[in-house]
Amino acid sequence: MDGRTQLGGIDKERLWADLMTLGAIGGTAAGGSMRGALSSADREGRALFAHWAREAGLALRVDRIGNMFARREGRNPQAAPVVIGSHLDTQLPGGKFDGPLGVLAGLAVCRALDAAGTVTARPIEVVNWTNEEGARFQPGVMGSAVYTGALDLTQALSRTDPTGASVEGELARIGAAGTTPVPGAVPHSYFELHIEQGPELEEAGLDIAMVTRSSAMCSGYATIRGENGHTQTLAMSKRRNALTAAAKLVLAIDAIGASIEPHGMVSASVIENWPNNRVNIPHLSKLSWAIVGFDPAIREATVARIEAACAGIATETGLVIELDHRHYREPCLFDEALIGKGLEAAATRGYAATRMPTLTAHDALSFCALCPTALVFVPCEGGISHSEAEWCSPDQAAKGADILLDLVQEAAESE
Amino acid sequence: MDGRTQLGGIDKERLWADLMTLGAIGGTAAGGSMRGALSSADREGRALFAHWAREAGLALRVDRIGNMFARREGRNPQAAPVVIGSHLDTQLPGGKFDGPLGVLAGLAVCRALDAAGTVTARPIEVVNWTNEEGARFQPGVMGSAVYTGALDLTQALSRTDPTGASVEGELARIGAAGTTPVPGAVPHSYFELHIEQGPELEEAGLDIAMVTRSSAMCSGYATIRGENGHTQTLAMSKRRNALTAAAKLVLAIDAIGASIEPHGMVSASVIENWPNNRVNIPHLSKLSWAIVGFDPAIREATVARIEAACAGIATETGLVIELDHRHYREPCLFDEALIGKGLEAAATRGYAATRMPTLTAHDALSFCALCPTALVFVPCEGGISHSEAEWCSPDQAAKGADILLDLVQEAAESE
Repeated sequence: MDGRTQLGGIDKERLWADLMTLGAIGGTAAGGSMRGALSSADREGRALFAHWAREAGLALRVDRIGNMFARREGRNPQAAPVVIGSHLDTQLPGGKFDGPLGVLAGLAVCRALDAAGTVTARPIEVVNWTNEEGARFQPGVMGSAVYTGALDLTQALSRTDPTGASVEGELARIGAAGTTPVPGAVPHSYFELHIEQGPELEEAGLDIAMVTRSSAMCSGYATIRGENGHTQTLAMSKRRNALTAAAKLVLAIDAIGASIEPHGMVSASVIENWPNNRVNIPHLSKLSWAIVGFDPAIREATVARIEAACAGIATETGLVIELDHRHYREPCLFDEALIGKGLEAAATRGYAATRMPTLTAHDALSFCALCPTALVFVPCEGGISHSEAEWCSPDQAAKGADILLDLVQEAAESE
Repeated sequence: MDGRTQLGGIDKERLWADLMTLGAIGGTAAGGSMRGALSSADREGRALFAHWAREAGLALRVDRIGNMFARREGRNPQAAPVVIGSHLDTQLPGGKFDGPLGVLAGLAVCRALDAAGTVTARPIEVVNWTNEEGARFQPGVMGSAVYTGALDLTQALSRTDPTGASVEGELARIGAAGTTPVPGAVPHSYFELHIEQGPELEEAGLDIAMVTRSSAMCSGYATIRGENGHTQTLAMSKRRNALTAAAKLVLAIDAIGASIEPHGMVSASVIENWPNNRVNIPHLSKLSWAIVGFDPAIREATVARIEAACAGIATETGLVIELDHRHYREPCLFDEALIGKGLEAAATRGYAATRMPTLTAHDALSFCALCPTALVFVPCEGGISHSEAEWCSPDQAAKGADILLDLVQEAAESE
């Protein structure tokens, strides 16, 4: 990248004000945000994004899964756009940065180009993808997967939250469904800015990471079948209690996780229990577990250890334990040319940067195989995320947005 | 009881046919029934009860919490009625006997009196109490508690199920709300027939138990507070995972239960977990636990052991564990005169009978302190209840109904 073409940078104060203003929608007492996908708070967040987009002169369109596209026209309107995307939905509760930083930095990039009087050759589109978090509706990364065609629209619309409300019904209720068909066209290139969600940048005193690859993941359910009975009459020794077996498995999976660090992480963080009544011995418990790591071989070995733990607990308790609905996500590689450009841009600006893999999923993963894609990380305090305590300083946020600006500006001028 | 006044007995085949017919409403593939309180299946069960009541010439009225009263008029309509009650709602799923036996045996008693051409001095009312099980709406024993005034109507109507549906809304939806005011008048006496829900009658080869007293109970919640975080980035050693602490507590409570047998039982059979998402470290888990036993002193000692287990796990994990919403139910004594009459009636009919306490709650407990009350148990296979496998033979059911007939007939002729 030629340092002489670099713009002055984004408006740090405005980006910070936008982050704090949006974060107050669905804001929690502990400083986080609660904007589950397609909730009423998400509606308010979407309305604010639409307002800011119109204020910046961007043209808004919405597709059938509710993805919002704010378009800055290029000199060549027929050229494939450069896309900047992330998400405005949060965990339940989540923080002010996971998602919003990437979307609001996109608006900041457009404003910086306006301030410099720059009209790029290619259009630029800033996207709010629907339901990245998967906190309310499974699966996560829903909107971007429907956009690329990896997930069928009908299937996505039919998903329900724990109260039975569907994606289709909630899109209609909050007026978030648009008419633009899906899947959408492949962009020229895709860019996403995100907090790291881990502690490495902070610990190393660095400003920026260009993400090199994603993790090898395996998730699934463990279904434990016991037998009904009355908790106040059936002798403890005769019980076939699915919840006690599930408790053993939670602890076994946690111990496996501790033993494979730093090569990966294993968690069983979801439990469902039937009939979940004080006078009934649980006859069915279901755990959801997931392994992430960089080495597929360690992932396979860890799956085998979870299988062995299930078999051991099944033998010990006499209950049936099934490992089902196994889902694998293979690592993807980010574009080496863009990684190099990002590191170069950081050097020119005097920001300390590194290369880094990511353990977590992002909308950017949906585009890795389709077009040149870059994922930029900035540090977050203590590596904490998916938490009301999630924090990223104004400086850190702005430095990340500066690199996004540099990468997008160059891409939008390219062939 | 004077054996010469004893009627021939109830119609065993009809009682059995009624049990099987009702059990098919909400019937499950495994032979149980799924008629959660105020569900659509409960509406069908209520309609069938109303049909059978009208067929038997009984006058039906329904009160504001949906309790259904089928009245057989007496020679003295102003006299306080003799009440036979139990419930038609089931666990989720439950069996064909827990509840329905007591209600349908009440109809069988009325038909037996009809067959003998007997009109009793006092009216007899056969009652289906709303929501005894507490499986869908907490608390259980709801309808009879509202009837006696132990539970406020407004409070009961406001309770919601896990999907947010309220008792008031569901009463309206299925058309189960009546106009008779609550609380209702104290009956002359109260009778309930139920399966034992434990193995003792079957193991001893007995037909009948007259219940002497109920158990000392203590229930409550354990609320475990951890901290949010991302399951795919936060090091295992830094996690403050509420679910792993909950798992330890489930196992600790189960071990305490095993150690106090045969003096009582302790169960933690309900778990709720937040945000219960695959990418989030659980920051809040809640267990519901309960102790039942006959000796209040053992109950107190067991509560202390649960408190100690919570304190130990809190220290080990560094998390906060609160024991809250503690609720005590003190033992009640059943009417000794009625116990004696029940044993005498069994002897006259040649049925092997005994005295027995009950660990479980029943609608009869609502009346113990208000009027002479009797609870009659018959054996159930393997002591299994709250289960699709729940079973009581036609002979056992009919023998219990015969004793109910004898007790009710005498009470309905008394001053």
